[in-house]
Amino acid sequence: MKKLINDPADVVAEALVGMEAAHGDRLRIDYEHKVIYRKDAPRQGKVGLISGGGSGHEPLHGGYVGPGMLDAACCGEVFTSPVPDQLLAATTEVDGGAGVLHIVKNYTGDVMNFEMAAELAAAESAVEVRSVVVDDDVAVQDSLYTAGRRGVGTTVILEKLVGAAAESGRSLDEVAALADRVNAAGRSMGLALTSCTVPAAGKPTFELGEDEMELGIGIHGEPGRKRVPLASAREAAQLLVDPILTDLPYGTGDSVIAMVNGMGGTPLIELYLMYGEVHRLLEQAGIGIARCLVGNYITSLEMAGCSVTLVKADDEFVDLWDAPVNTPGLRWGA
Amino acid sequence: MKKLINDPADVVAEALVGMEAAHGDRLRIDYEHKVIYRKDAPRQGKVGLISGGGSGHEPLHGGYVGPGMLDAACCGEVFTSPVPDQLLAATTEVDGGAGVLHIVKNYTGDVMNFEMAAELAAAESAVEVRSVVVDDDVAVQDSLYTAGRRGVGTTVILEKLVGAAAESGRSLDEVAALADRVNAAGRSMGLALTSCTVPAAGKPTFELGEDEMELGIGIHGEPGRKRVPLASAREAAQLLVDPILTDLPYGTGDSVIAMVNGMGGTPLIELYLMYGEVHRLLEQAGIGIARCLVGNYITSLEMAGCSVTLVKADDEFVDLWDAPVNTPGLRWGA
Repeated sequence: MKKLINDPADVVAEALVGMEAAHGDRLRIDYEHKVIYRKDAPRQGKVGLISGGGSGHEPLHGGYVGPGMLDAACCGEVFTSPVPDQLLAATTEVDGGAGVLHIVKNYTGDVMNFEMAAELAAAESAVEVRSVVVDDDVAVQDSLYTAGRRGVGTTVILEKLVGAAAESGRSLDEVAALADRVNAAGRSMGLALTSCTVPAAGKPTFELGEDEMELGIGIHGEPGRKRVPLASAREAAQLLVDPILTDLPYGTGDSVIAMVNGMGGTPLIELYLMYGEVHRLLEQAGIGIARCLVGNYITSLEMAGCSVTLVKADDEFVDLWDAPVNTPGLRWGA
Repeated sequence: MKKLINDPADVVAEALVGMEAAHGDRLRIDYEHKVIYRKDAPRQGKVGLISGGGSGHEPLHGGYVGPGMLDAACCGEVFTSPVPDQLLAATTEVDGGAGVLHIVKNYTGDVMNFEMAAELAAAESAVEVRSVVVDDDVAVQDSLYTAGRRGVGTTVILEKLVGAAAESGRSLDEVAALADRVNAAGRSMGLALTSCTVPAAGKPTFELGEDEMELGIGIHGEPGRKRVPLASAREAAQLLVDPILTDLPYGTGDSVIAMVNGMGGTPLIELYLMYGEVHRLLEQAGIGIARCLVGNYITSLEMAGCSVTLVKADDEFVDLWDAPVNTPGLRWGA
């Protein structure tokens, strides 16, 4: 295992030290609960937004804390759900009287622990909590850690859109309804060229032959649809885009926010090359790209590979996308 | 070789297609010369800023084209200098009557080809050209493709500071003098945990044992100072920071712009952990960090590893750093 770490047991806590050192002007850290807060949280009258999950997917979620996006991110151990105590602490802390939205990726442990925290927060502190469970991965119906579809790339776009809505003063009902609409409009699929190594495990999560790729990979290395021979970028783009387009479905005249996301170990030059292929396929299908992201936004440690996410976008979504955001991972207009 | 590409010969050109598809609102591409232009270049009366070099270091340089940074980036083949024709085309194109600054990383081919282009531009089109050669890598004196020190991470910070100065209307003399001052104030050093594979070569540039790292690595995989046993993040940070601090030197009371940069294949969680270590070492040395970057800013394809860059920064540098920038790779205040 070749990693820039000290003790594998300390990776998450020590990365938080670096986050605070780098972004202490905007963020503060609760080291006891491993929560990254927007420095000025809670904001009175603003709906509080919390996400979280296993670590190892950075910049998700801690990199999306800040004005225009999340109020808090709860960091589990690498590829491990955060526990209810963390989520409860964050829920209580960010409530500014307007209630709190939990943004949950659909993995069994995450869903269960967020639910428990919501119940405890309601009972102990009378915080009104809603939640959205993101389940956008078209690859497989159930998975290693998931009943139903896995939550992946749409989470990034949802956190941006819902973050803008909360910032503008919308109510908890409105923000929760928007979150559901974004999730319903988003679909993703990914592939892996290599595995990744969880520090505490010390060896690759799975094995993949030199001439193979895993189509429909999960962000923790969960099995996808099938192993296929290593394909060209052109073929790979089609293998990802076709299942997405037929699923929602998306069609001629639709407009989308598109993301070509790296899994952590794929060079940016390859991600731009892939984006060119995805763009061509959408153009052929008569689908317009209103806004896009190309880069590493929801990763799986050092895994090589990429995913494609499309969120069908009306004018409201595009306006929310364009609103100012000031986080370590996404920043514009601020 | 596991890469998301089509034909290895087409990687650079096809990545440019993706760049234009993603950022066509701000950038335009000259496919014949493989140059990425700021869409509104040339700007009358503004000093034109050009950089370039081998591809495979993205987001450098194409990701730094846009308002507040570069006017053009010339893309060589992967790890190969751009040719004089490309550089000449860009120099002529971005001249808005105030002259052009070439920002050159110190590699023999780059220096030679930029010089040739500067002479041709002066002779053929009467464009006034100055150049700065960045040579900030403290690892080795001469290297595989370099007489003198290699140009690495300081290039990113220089392009930002000089970009802000050019945007504010400073003259060519002033911008060139600033570029020299930034280069003189910057030092870097890197290490690699793994090699990378150039698409056209199809096999790793070098071999490195499972228990080794290359200290002082170049961004093309050039040999560093020595191979050392794989170290902890704490030790690795010291091995990078100590040679930098003693070189300039930096000392108590100094203020710096600091970058912990990933080589392309190292997860962001490890880069933040490393930043925490670097921050601690600088604090111990009495050095303040005025601004910082943590992430993949000057890469070596999918190489695992990182580099540290420090630029000694006065108030002027910090003000230029904070000025608005709107590029694919760096964006704030815009």
